[in-house]
Amino acid sequence: MGLKTVKLSFLFNFFGNDYFSLVAFLQACLLYLFYRWCYAIYLGHMSQQKLNLDKTDEFGEDFEITATDSTTFPPTYLVIRVHPASKEEAVKWLVGKIRGKKLLGGAELVVLRKPYDEDGLEFHVSASPIKFLEIAEEMELVKRDKHGQMREFTVNDLENFLVDGMNVDDFLTSAERQAIIRHELENIRALPTDIHVPGYPFYSMCEGQSVLHKCIQCGIISSIYALHDQEHLKKLGRSWYRSVFQKQPLDEIKIYFGESIALYFTFLGFYTTALLFPTFLGFVQLLVSIETLPVFCIFNVIWVTVFLEMWRRKSNELAYKWGTIGMTSLGEPRANFRGQMGKDPITGKLCPQYPRYKTYLKMYCVSFPIVIACLVGAYIIMLISFWMEDQIKYNPETWSQDLLLLPSVLYTALVYVMNCYYRKLATFLTEWENHRTQSQFDRHRVTKLILFEFVNNFMSLFYIAFIIQDMEMLRSQVATMLIILQAINHMQEAVLPLLINVGFAKISQWKNGWKNTRQTKSKQKAFEDSRYSREFLETIPAIDPSDSRLNQAEQEGQLEIYEETYDDYLEMFIQFGYVVLFSSVYPAAALWAVINNVLEIRADAFRLCLVHQRPISRKVKDIGAWQRAFEVIGGLSIMTNCGLLCLSPHIRSRMAHKTDLEYILTFIFLEHILLGIRYLLHIAIPDKPEWVRVELAKKSYESRQALKHEKALKSKRYLTRRFNTVHSKHPISGPALGNK
Amino acid sequence: MGLKTVKLSFLFNFFGNDYFSLVAFLQACLLYLFYRWCYAIYLGHMSQQKLNLDKTDEFGEDFEITATDSTTFPPTYLVIRVHPASKEEAVKWLVGKIRGKKLLGGAELVVLRKPYDEDGLEFHVSASPIKFLEIAEEMELVKRDKHGQMREFTVNDLENFLVDGMNVDDFLTSAERQAIIRHELENIRALPTDIHVPGYPFYSMCEGQSVLHKCIQCGIISSIYALHDQEHLKKLGRSWYRSVFQKQPLDEIKIYFGESIALYFTFLGFYTTALLFPTFLGFVQLLVSIETLPVFCIFNVIWVTVFLEMWRRKSNELAYKWGTIGMTSLGEPRANFRGQMGKDPITGKLCPQYPRYKTYLKMYCVSFPIVIACLVGAYIIMLISFWMEDQIKYNPETWSQDLLLLPSVLYTALVYVMNCYYRKLATFLTEWENHRTQSQFDRHRVTKLILFEFVNNFMSLFYIAFIIQDMEMLRSQVATMLIILQAINHMQEAVLPLLINVGFAKISQWKNGWKNTRQTKSKQKAFEDSRYSREFLETIPAIDPSDSRLNQAEQEGQLEIYEETYDDYLEMFIQFGYVVLFSSVYPAAALWAVINNVLEIRADAFRLCLVHQRPISRKVKDIGAWQRAFEVIGGLSIMTNCGLLCLSPHIRSRMAHKTDLEYILTFIFLEHILLGIRYLLHIAIPDKPEWVRVELAKKSYESRQALKHEKALKSKRYLTRRFNTVHSKHPISGPALGNK
Repeated sequence: MGLKTVKLSFLFNFFGNDYFSLVAFLQACLLYLFYRWCYAIYLGHMSQQKLNLDKTDEFGEDFEITATDSTTFPPTYLVIRVHPASKEEAVKWLVGKIRGKKLLGGAELVVLRKPYDEDGLEFHVSASPIKFLEIAEEMELVKRDKHGQMREFTVNDLENFLVDGMNVDDFLTSAERQAIIRHELENIRALPTDIHVPGYPFYSMCEGQSVLHKCIQCGIISSIYALHDQEHLKKLGRSWYRSVFQKQPLDEIKIYFGESIALYFTFLGFYTTALLFPTFLGFVQLLVSIETLPVFCIFNVIWVTVFLEMWRRKSNELAYKWGTIGMTSLGEPRANFRGQMGKDPITGKLCPQYPRYKTYLKMYCVSFPIVIACLVGAYIIMLISFWMEDQIKYNPETWSQDLLLLPSVLYTALVYVMNCYYRKLATFLTEWENHRTQSQFDRHRVTKLILFEFVNNFMSLFYIAFIIQDMEMLRSQVATMLIILQAINHMQEAVLPLLINVGFAKISQWKNGWKNTRQTKSKQKAFEDSRYSREFLETIPAIDPSDSRLNQAEQEGQLEIYEETYDDYLEMFIQFGYVVLFSSVYPAAALWAVINNVLEIRADAFRLCLVHQRPISRKVKDIGAWQRAFEVIGGLSIMTNCGLLCLSPHIRSRMAHKTDLEYILTFIFLEHILLGIRYLLHIAIPDKPEWVRVELAKKSYESRQALKHEKALKSKRYLTRRFNTVHSKHPISGPALGNK
Repeated sequence: MGLKTVKLSFLFNFFGNDYFSLVAFLQACLLYLFYRWCYAIYLGHMSQQKLNLDKTDEFGEDFEITATDSTTFPPTYLVIRVHPASKEEAVKWLVGKIRGKKLLGGAELVVLRKPYDEDGLEFHVSASPIKFLEIAEEMELVKRDKHGQMREFTVNDLENFLVDGMNVDDFLTSAERQAIIRHELENIRALPTDIHVPGYPFYSMCEGQSVLHKCIQCGIISSIYALHDQEHLKKLGRSWYRSVFQKQPLDEIKIYFGESIALYFTFLGFYTTALLFPTFLGFVQLLVSIETLPVFCIFNVIWVTVFLEMWRRKSNELAYKWGTIGMTSLGEPRANFRGQMGKDPITGKLCPQYPRYKTYLKMYCVSFPIVIACLVGAYIIMLISFWMEDQIKYNPETWSQDLLLLPSVLYTALVYVMNCYYRKLATFLTEWENHRTQSQFDRHRVTKLILFEFVNNFMSLFYIAFIIQDMEMLRSQVATMLIILQAINHMQEAVLPLLINVGFAKISQWKNGWKNTRQTKSKQKAFEDSRYSREFLETIPAIDPSDSRLNQAEQEGQLEIYEETYDDYLEMFIQFGYVVLFSSVYPAAALWAVINNVLEIRADAFRLCLVHQRPISRKVKDIGAWQRAFEVIGGLSIMTNCGLLCLSPHIRSRMAHKTDLEYILTFIFLEHILLGIRYLLHIAIPDKPEWVRVELAKKSYESRQALKHEKALKSKRYLTRRFNTVHSKHPISGPALGNK
């Protein structure tokens, strides 16, 4: 057997014992080419559209004189679409709230109106530059000051936050401005006089409720979305999805999309880099003898633990740099947090109060049992599907073998349906539990979802591995999931919506053409068409019909909504599970994961920039429930891998001299040692890098000093007033001093 | 079999199958009586001594006119004894430092001298009332203010800290004053001009070194100890060790002995109360059938986890109440912390700087391997002892059976010796690692010691349980340890030193009589006897020879030193190990532990008040390394108990229908379920009670607000100065506002 044969057999080993994986690899390559091709088409389409846009601009020049000078209007940050059937009273009330004075419960924002309203009114919301700064102070936005320190921004201290040469207009990032507008809109709260939504006596309200969310619930507002900043986006795209093998522009992502999405991409990058280690290990593992497998097991455990601990450090580092590290569950309540209005025990501000123990009661006494019941249900359905498969397989006289795939197909379909309902249930339960902050809400919602996904995605593999004990089946399952399903995912996530969009864009282009002819009608006509009174409409300044924002708002309104980072993390979580839980049967898993992730990073970027509506930026300090979920998988991986090694007939035959009992005890011992190592690593690696700890301690020290001075100053003033009384009562500077 | 027999057999079961335990119980009762008796004797002795003291006072009246009026001198907080052979230059230099001005590197404390110095000079150190307050501010002492908030004390704000009617003299507790004096003494640091200790050119010093510790190292200072406040102590004792079945006066303990000791007693109380649950469970366990044992195992796991989590909450609660919750590893460096003097990155104060990574390097590259080697050594010695015992037992022809106890005795002796050396080694290594704060130092030192103690105390039991698998032997070992050894411990800790002290007191009484006659000699004589020059001695005010403090200082100087809380915690740790690790073979363990602890609480109190020198108070925020040590034992207990259940022949016989493999897998499954429950409980129980979190968040919020205002104020002043420039550069209030 020459060298060449050895090499080939090595490749053969690596890609699984059937050529299945090799085929899949080729498929993946094809997929990648397809993706590049689609992208090229899309780019072509975009540039064509840009051309159209430019044309519109030219076309619009005729109106420049008659229309309001919209260039002095601030850029649009959020678009609110009102349902066409909404009553005028309600819309008037809502707009009044948005534009109203702070003291009267308004948000003091700037509202612009779309000049015509055949699909319902459309409002463009923005704010004046000084308003942005004021709200930033109110939101306790943490920014880096001149001296490089992270601290709460105040308008009075603005000068100190403008790092050399920075203009005040560049001070807040695009994501921050958007978040500020969203924050103000969400925090328009019902006054005691707002008993119900005007015009809808059945939609009653209680004091402190978020007006915006009520309007969304009642269907008065049909959608709210953010507008892209085309120029900024193009610049970002150039350094991001268009340069596949370069570093991700994470700072830019944070500036444009906000912390939540930037953290996801940082995680994805960090995780993919970390995966190189098990990929390498997977290669080595195939070259060595089978007795050394436990050694790889140890390496894997160390890798998983170190990776997660290092990520926690990294995440804390970012949270410090982004000024979000101080977020706690006692922070600002989310808009939908219900409770009696009262003074916050911490800030003293008026906000809804709800006792925490009630949330705990609801969580542990209602949600927890319900979730457990759902998990058990899902598990039972899985068992039934396996049982049916067995029935069909082993009773060929009763069942036709053509039906062999039926249980799997049925199961998959059922899981898909269950998932949809379960998501709704989880969201409902978490909303009902009434968590105070958005982070808490997300954490508890995501925890519920993860548990269900865990049962659906991994339980069948556990069943195959430890109950049926069919290693070949397990290996092919893992490979299928990692190769085929991930490829399908790419298709579903990036390519499909892209194709649909291109189609839609064609239609909307046609529609636009029609609209443009309509726009030539006078402004007067717009008022006549409307179901709202002219008096009302005239109070709101309209955008110039030639403004490109109108077109953009319409186009982006049709794009798919990006629903948080949940699905993206979930994909990574499931992949991580496959890679670490069953790494000892399928060492090539890490390689597939790396290949997928390199594509995923760019595909997700592409999706965010071009396929979805611009997501509303969110501040987060960590990846929330996912950190723990990954850690639990890391812990479980010790048990599964030890179990798999133990079940491996190769290893058993090598250790034939041991009795069954001795053999099993060996692996149990190994498992406990690994659990011990994990624990040691966990306590040996600090959660935060030293410099972050020092910076935080420094800030805390300075704050405390400031408080001391403030209190001392106050006290001094007070003391000066009552000097005589105090002097005679506490002889501090009196005769007692003589001793010194 | 009547009811009576059943009951008796139940008792028989409970006390072990041999009457061994019953006998031990009687012994314990006897011991308790003996302890009460000793205590009565001691009280008699104390009141007699008090009488003597009063006599001395009467006797001293003759001198009242000639001596300095020592009642105006502040009370003594620390006594420094100088070695009789110390050179005058060194002593002069030291006293100069203690009394010297802050600006010149001194501590500005008050020093009094013992009038005669036949055993070396003795200095009584105190401070003026205003000095106490000043240092308290400097140390950032956290106290409760009028509004019930915990915050850093400042002298300027004193008024706000005096809760209604409180006198400024009562503001600092006895323990705090003592800590303040200690802090100031320790923080006398060598100046660049202090190249060596004057008079000792070989004792070189480097800048920033603690002068006090150098003097102790060089033997110039022979001892430093705190003096008791007899009146306070008597009051404390009345509500503490003299009322056995009442609640411990924890607040009083904290005021008198400081946080570290108060926390130990709180822990002891909390733990003892918590033990009632497994005690009850132990009773029930004996009444039910053997199949239900796994159920008890689950209960025990839940108990251990909940107990430790609740303790963590309790400890955080106390830390908040005591104002120590803000202590971090970046806090004030300990006196022996070495490093180049530099600006602290957090406070900006000058203090030694040492890169943390060097400490980590030393820890992981040197200390860790050494400690591991020691542990392995101890383990091997244990194995050898077992091997020797086997040799003697199974070779009756070679060895006389009288030697059967020899290996155990040898082993015990060897462990004792090793322990002594290992403690020194651990202290040395930890000192060399150069940890910044006292808490860090303690944590790392205690961790090293715990590991060694773990091997010495528990490894032999693990060996018996899982290698020899002799359950009877294991049970009797656990019982011996819990009953006999704890009783011996009581003897060794409280009764023996007490007897020795009574003896010593008699001798010192006789000596005192002799001294009193000497005191009649003129003050002049004292100067003549001294090896120090009269000029030097006259610069330091002497205490009136009739002052009872002189006698007290001498008596308390002879008492045993209380070496931190380490030994006390260790005792609890070992007990906890016996109770939880092997609870399934010896369910009565918890009962013995409770009995022991009820005695222990009072015996320890007694010891602290009457047997030992007054310990120097220490601020701590938690029980340090012990928390983790207890948690690890809790985790191990899952494994040991599952293992023990699995090995139990009774359970095996009840589950005879299962194959060996199935049987073992059942227990492994149980173990994993228990580990899972533990993890869930760990994440479900928050570390801090809600109210503590709210209070901390509130304080942090207020501090941040204060910092914002301070910065904004500064910025405003700055802005006013350069108004024109700024106005033209950033048009904040300019035309941009028009949009609003």
